[in-house]
Amino acid sequence: MSHATVHVLNGPNLDLLGVREPHIYGTTTLADIEAMCRDVASGRLEFHQTNHEGVMIDLIHAARETGGGIIINPAGWSFSSIAILDALKAFDGPVIELHISNIHARDAAHRHSVMSQGVTAVIAGLGAQGYPVAVQAMYRLLAT
Amino acid sequence: MSHATVHVLNGPNLDLLGVREPHIYGTTTLADIEAMCRDVASGRLEFHQTNHEGVMIDLIHAARETGGGIIINPAGWSFSSIAILDALKAFDGPVIELHISNIHARDAAHRHSVMSQGVTAVIAGLGAQGYPVAVQAMYRLLAT
Amino acid sequence: MSHATVHVLNGPNLDLLGVREPHIYGTTTLADIEAMCRDVASGRLEFHQTNHEGVMIDLIHAARETGGGIIINPAGWSFSSIAILDALKAFDGPVIELHISNIHARDAAHRHSVMSQGVTAVIAGLGAQGYPVAVQAMYRLLAT
Amino acid sequence: MSHATVHVLNGPNLDLLGVREPHIYGTTTLADIEAMCRDVASGRLEFHQTNHEGVMIDLIHAARETGGGIIINPAGWSFSSIAILDALKAFDGPVIELHISNIHARDAAHRHSVMSQGVTAVIAGLGAQGYPVAVQAMYRLLAT
Amino acid sequence: MSHATVHVLNGPNLDLLGVREPHIYGTTTLADIEAMCRDVASGRLEFHQTNHEGVMIDLIHAARETGGGIIINPAGWSFSSIAILDALKAFDGPVIELHISNIHARDAAHRHSVMSQGVTAVIAGLGAQGYPVAVQAMYRLLAT
Amino acid sequence: MSHATVHVLNGPNLDLLGVREPHIYGTTTLADIEAMCRDVASGRLEFHQTNHEGVMIDLIHAARETGGGIIINPAGWSFSSIAILDALKAFDGPVIELHISNIHARDAAHRHSVMSQGVTAVIAGLGAQGYPVAVQAMYRLLAT
Amino acid sequence: MSHATVHVLNGPNLDLLGVREPHIYGTTTLADIEAMCRDVASGRLEFHQTNHEGVMIDLIHAARETGGGIIINPAGWSFSSIAILDALKAFDGPVIELHISNIHARDAAHRHSVMSQGVTAVIAGLGAQGYPVAVQAMYRLLAT
Amino acid sequence: MSHATVHVLNGPNLDLLGVREPHIYGTTTLADIEAMCRDVASGRLEFHQTNHEGVMIDLIHAARETGGGIIINPAGWSFSSIAILDALKAFDGPVIELHISNIHARDAAHRHSVMSQGVTAVIAGLGAQGYPVAVQAMYRLLAT
Amino acid sequence: MSHATVHVLNGPNLDLLGVREPHIYGTTTLADIEAMCRDVASGRLEFHQTNHEGVMIDLIHAARETGGGIIINPAGWSFSSIAILDALKAFDGPVIELHISNIHARDAAHRHSVMSQGVTAVIAGLGAQGYPVAVQAMYRLLAT
Amino acid sequence: MSHATVHVLNGPNLDLLGVREPHIYGTTTLADIEAMCRDVASGRLEFHQTNHEGVMIDLIHAARETGGGIIINPAGWSFSSIAILDALKAFDGPVIELHISNIHARDAAHRHSVMSQGVTAVIAGLGAQGYPVAVQAMYRLLAT
Amino acid sequence: MSHATVHVLNGPNLDLLGVREPHIYGTTTLADIEAMCRDVASGRLEFHQTNHEGVMIDLIHAARETGGGIIINPAGWSFSSIAILDALKAFDGPVIELHISNIHARDAAHRHSVMSQGVTAVIAGLGAQGYPVAVQAMYRLLAT
Amino acid sequence: MSHATVHVLNGPNLDLLGVREPHIYGTTTLADIEAMCRDVASGRLEFHQTNHEGVMIDLIHAARETGGGIIINPAGWSFSSIAILDALKAFDGPVIELHISNIHARDAAHRHSVMSQGVTAVIAGLGAQGYPVAVQAMYRLLAT
Repeated sequence: MSHATVHVLNGPNLDLLGVREPHIYGTTTLADIEAMCRDVASGRLEFHQTNHEGVMIDLIHAARETGGGIIINPAGWSFSSIAILDALKAFDGPVIELHISNIHARDAAHRHSVMSQGVTAVIAGLGAQGYPVAVQAMYRLLAT
Repeated sequence: MSHATVHVLNGPNLDLLGVREPHIYGTTTLADIEAMCRDVASGRLEFHQTNHEGVMIDLIHAARETGGGIIINPAGWSFSSIAILDALKAFDGPVIELHISNIHARDAAHRHSVMSQGVTAVIAGLGAQGYPVAVQAMYRLLAT
Repeated sequence: MSHATVHVLNGPNLDLLGVREPHIYGTTTLADIEAMCRDVASGRLEFHQTNHEGVMIDLIHAARETGGGIIINPAGWSFSSIAILDALKAFDGPVIELHISNIHARDAAHRHSVMSQGVTAVIAGLGAQGYPVAVQAMYRLLAT
Repeated sequence: MSHATVHVLNGPNLDLLGVREPHIYGTTTLADIEAMCRDVASGRLEFHQTNHEGVMIDLIHAARETGGGIIINPAGWSFSSIAILDALKAFDGPVIELHISNIHARDAAHRHSVMSQGVTAVIAGLGAQGYPVAVQAMYRLLAT
Repeated sequence: MSHATVHVLNGPNLDLLGVREPHIYGTTTLADIEAMCRDVASGRLEFHQTNHEGVMIDLIHAARETGGGIIINPAGWSFSSIAILDALKAFDGPVIELHISNIHARDAAHRHSVMSQGVTAVIAGLGAQGYPVAVQAMYRLLAT
Repeated sequence: MSHATVHVLNGPNLDLLGVREPHIYGTTTLADIEAMCRDVASGRLEFHQTNHEGVMIDLIHAARETGGGIIINPAGWSFSSIAILDALKAFDGPVIELHISNIHARDAAHRHSVMSQGVTAVIAGLGAQGYPVAVQAMYRLLAT
Repeated sequence: MSHATVHVLNGPNLDLLGVREPHIYGTTTLADIEAMCRDVASGRLEFHQTNHEGVMIDLIHAARETGGGIIINPAGWSFSSIAILDALKAFDGPVIELHISNIHARDAAHRHSVMSQGVTAVIAGLGAQGYPVAVQAMYRLLAT
Repeated sequence: MSHATVHVLNGPNLDLLGVREPHIYGTTTLADIEAMCRDVASGRLEFHQTNHEGVMIDLIHAARETGGGIIINPAGWSFSSIAILDALKAFDGPVIELHISNIHARDAAHRHSVMSQGVTAVIAGLGAQGYPVAVQAMYRLLAT
Repeated sequence: MSHATVHVLNGPNLDLLGVREPHIYGTTTLADIEAMCRDVASGRLEFHQTNHEGVMIDLIHAARETGGGIIINPAGWSFSSIAILDALKAFDGPVIELHISNIHARDAAHRHSVMSQGVTAVIAGLGAQGYPVAVQAMYRLLAT
Repeated sequence: MSHATVHVLNGPNLDLLGVREPHIYGTTTLADIEAMCRDVASGRLEFHQTNHEGVMIDLIHAARETGGGIIINPAGWSFSSIAILDALKAFDGPVIELHISNIHARDAAHRHSVMSQGVTAVIAGLGAQGYPVAVQAMYRLLAT
Repeated sequence: MSHATVHVLNGPNLDLLGVREPHIYGTTTLADIEAMCRDVASGRLEFHQTNHEGVMIDLIHAARETGGGIIINPAGWSFSSIAILDALKAFDGPVIELHISNIHARDAAHRHSVMSQGVTAVIAGLGAQGYPVAVQAMYRLLAT
Repeated sequence: MSHATVHVLNGPNLDLLGVREPHIYGTTTLADIEAMCRDVASGRLEFHQTNHEGVMIDLIHAARETGGGIIINPAGWSFSSIAILDALKAFDGPVIELHISNIHARDAAHRHSVMSQGVTAVIAGLGAQGYPVAVQAMYRLLAT
């Protein structure tokens, strides 16, 4: 099971990571994060980013082919996209929702992602370190 | 009037119909549904599915050319896309909003589509049979 | 199955149809509508109207005898009568809730019927044409 | 116009007036009130009380025959009966909603009647005196 | 005091008890329940069921004649009928509101009866056994 | 008692009556209304209008000297001025709150005046005729 | 089954019963109540009171040893303690939630206990008599 | 600074301007508006419209290259797109949010854009004239 | 039309501009702002400030004499004064509501002015520059 | 610092203190209270009352001249006047908000003053004694 | 009366005072505060701190023995502990609720303590100085 | 830093883990979990469970001595204990809030912990595996 594919899917504006509001999100870029993930990956690792909701839905549909697990950082779509939630619910394996900052400490409107009701687990607030932690946690989920 | 074009437009994840959560939505595929619609259609029938909101808006704009009526299953966009609602309001003919399951029986946050204020009629809960029923209802609306 | 009984039950003030606020509900009377229903009915059709909630509950209980399906336009009771909802939930066959106008386009307090959580399907906004469409849809539900 | 019929319609439990919770509603009986109304009436005066919603709807429908105006004390139905509201909206003449106590001083759930959006005027808090005041006010409305 | 009359009043759809949704309400019929009540009754016991709100109000008014106490299962009227609440408040003796299932465990909209503010006590969740328990509790209330 | 002083106090913008939004409030001016009030007044009648909240409070305080009753149309202050409400509560005689249009038919935020909890009665929706009706009603209140 | 243990557990401030706010709760002490319970008990009866949430949780855990049923008056913890609710849900036998006064008649924030979703039944408003009624009801639950 | 680039970005359905609901938005087309903007522009002016959220995000990211200021009419995305809000917050220069109609006069759900918390200024209700006003205002912002 | 009078009306505490909370509102005084307005004014310009709601209402009424347009910064009255809103609605010409800071970015209670439903347009967040921008925008409104 | 000026500012209807609703506010007059304040004052004490919001704002602005601290009892303005709140926020010294009764024990709408977010401290429920306590507390604040 | 006992009771985490978040609560320790209280105390002063809700309830019960008054800083329990509120309501003497910071300036969820409905007075925002002020205020309450 | 102490603190009812509702929480006991934590721990590991809120607060205070990081599973206290939140905020090192099930998928009232605003990160839904994942994540936090 340790060779199962892990799909790491990143939502809108995460291509600006390390640039946009660094006092909140730090200076680590998405490329740095991909490297951190590959360091702890023991199997195939798919890593994508898109600003287009439709592309994200297509990526989740495509993940149905190889199976394994999905780690998704829905970013700004977290609070409204039932379309992505529906796509995740159609995926058979475990899904970990990941947020770089601790969204649960935000204001009432933005502390709860609508994705959460359709995922296996949620990890938030570990910064860029949340990515390798999520990859390792995914292997544990796939092993059970 | 019975030769008017009927546009059947399907939103995100409906390409998975018959696959995704079959205990809720059944095993009928979207291709099966298109066939059911064509069985009862007496005029031109446009049938589309897309996971991209922008494409859906373009499809609705395009329908302004041929006129007739629109049957739309907005799926996950039902609860948030004012952009699609605005596009529908710019269409001159009748619009029927269609849902496979009875969304009105769901929880408070998901029992009311924001589309509904801009459409002529709503049909929900008839399963795949809702599609041919909607096509027949559309001919009645176009005839009045 | 096409000979199953269809019960069409109409709630308060619908006896004034064609008279009351015709700019909203049109000039078609309830007798006209009954005729439209019988035109498309292939089996027995029960057609009733009452302004008394208790009588409506008794009618629904009585429908348990012949079975088939119920089409109900709860009119003003839509937004408060849990008693009628409970009666409908005790009926074994399919139930279609029908509204002449598109109630889902109304204000927040009156766009969602409490009946909806206990019915199979909801049809709203097709005007008087909604009745024959509902009868035809009922035969489809009874056939599945 | 001063000979127009005035329909005074009383809802549930008002038959107990003068008996029930006299510290709130006083000791004047409904018969006393009818006499007070007839004292100031210059034309025909219909005066009814019922504990049955369906009967109230039928009374309002019947008032359509003679026309004039309706004074209604909906009592406990004030907060939920859309069915009676719909009946009132189908009446062409002026409608005055009457409450013996000042319901607008109550708690949030019971200070606003759902009837109010369908009536011409509201009078509340004048005690039994509100009835003759309403009859006199009705003649003013009918004269304009 | 043990010979005081106990009025057991049952609301809409309770005539279907033992038939309707037995997985929720069990198979005990209302006749069975009446027998259970009479088993523990030491005085006169009135036992009624009606699907008509107006009849229920009349029954409560009638109970004013013999006095004693009222046990009422308002069923579907629990959540909206201020008219019945007003009738109960005009009754001088103790009133116990009874629910077969534990309504307090339901969703926010249906876990609190509007009757409760006008009754002496509430018993919910004891199943059919709640009836004889309520009769016994009523004798205790009447004795204090 | 019929010689008691009646204070008719008018709030902001009522000096524009007959000019401002005549499709809602009609063409009757405040001077016309004062004349209508004097026609039915049997005792002293104080009639004032002010656009200054502080002046209104002073007027209410001053009314404590002569006693009698207050008829107040708080206009735009209806929905926020606890200061005027407090002044009214310090007045010993009856207070009638008057609105020209039926404010109870408006949207949720503007259908309930904060004044109402501190007044004896509320009259709304009778148009300019509400003023003489209120004066007559005040004499009834003062007589009881 | 009539020899099963019944655990009667009392929450904070109930040690002041008969002293604190007697106009609401009466003058009966908790010792009087324990005696009333023992009068109707046919088996072992555990009777405890604590002002410490942690001790209450431990008492519920301990009741798992002897089994039987729990009658709990959570008093001030009723509206917030998910910790006690979780403990009750881990108990296999029936649980009756008991309140001396009719909490369902209180204001919106305090008329519904969070315990209620995890208990079998709720009894409220019977005063001190609620205790022996609950014990008798518990034997009925244990017998079914 | 007067030569700084001004990016005018238009959201969904604005390509129908002058066609869609002209009684609300007027008959001026988007091409007319672009001309009005260029009339008052003293520097480079980028003018775009898209129905695709992802394209809009890419346009905002691209504006980071040339700098200057952004004028955005988010249209239907105003009420839900946190993704566009996040993109705007990553832009260093001033941002003016523009609405053709006065959205602040709409119903509670649609009178406040979620964009507003991430922009410098908001201009709404000036019709097509709002565009050149916004361009002129932008030069003032860029000059300070 | 370019000679029409423009009335610039300023609400409470704006006399402290340049002094009060300069980190939010800057150091520009109201006199500076009046000068900026006169610089761009081509016709008569009335410029007033008051801390008295009644005076503001009188100023708006007075503006009815000369006509033209009103630019109002209601400051602290924005969130509660229906009285000023009513006065503005009685003005026939265009009204621009102006805020120095971007109030739409504030907390839920203070991001929406009650004035907005009665004005033509809203401009917020341009700082002191908002004043001359509003004057120029007013000439555009008056010219259409 | 003990010679610093203390400004005691009283809002609407407080001139009726000792007269209005004495069962709530007691019989102590405002003159009595001023004397109690002067008894404990070691420096200059300004003591004012007004029923005009604009005058109150002017008083607060004037207090900026002498500095020291402000003790304000905003009475009925507590729940709506952002204009007074803004004036208080422009004052550099400490501000104590004072209420004679314990407003925090009132209903949800009137238990929290909008002033509170702009003041240093709040004292409520000490009756007339709250005034000298507030003066003494002010000296402590001025000394730190 | 000046020799009456004053009980100063401190809730959870106040043992960390002077250490925890000093930028909010200052560097004064609880021992310093006890000394400040004893400086102004003329009679017996009980001073306690506990992190255990049950212990706090016991302390309040114990205070019933010596009488006098209670000053309580409920800290984190302010927003949820009905159990402590019930204990306070069972205390016969005056109770002052004390908060070091001005909790009324916080967010909606934490600006109102549930204790407040059961206490005589509330003092908040005076920092450590609030303690001696409260002791002095308590003597005034005990003297009246 | 890898030798820093990690404090794993468990709240109410977690002593029943493996016993209570195993279909939700699995059969792994708390002892099993402690072993899993020690397997991945490279430094000192404190592991505690308590049903007493006060004890939990004391444990958090005690952790201030050794420093390092805290992993807390607040269980039933998650939704109400501001007292524990305050204790956590007084801890200088990183804090990870851990939930065995995905609480973010629950109903609105129980999907958001009040702890979350005071912690560094949140991990939920990984089952018993969440514990070792949290320990490993803590080392990453301590290393940055």
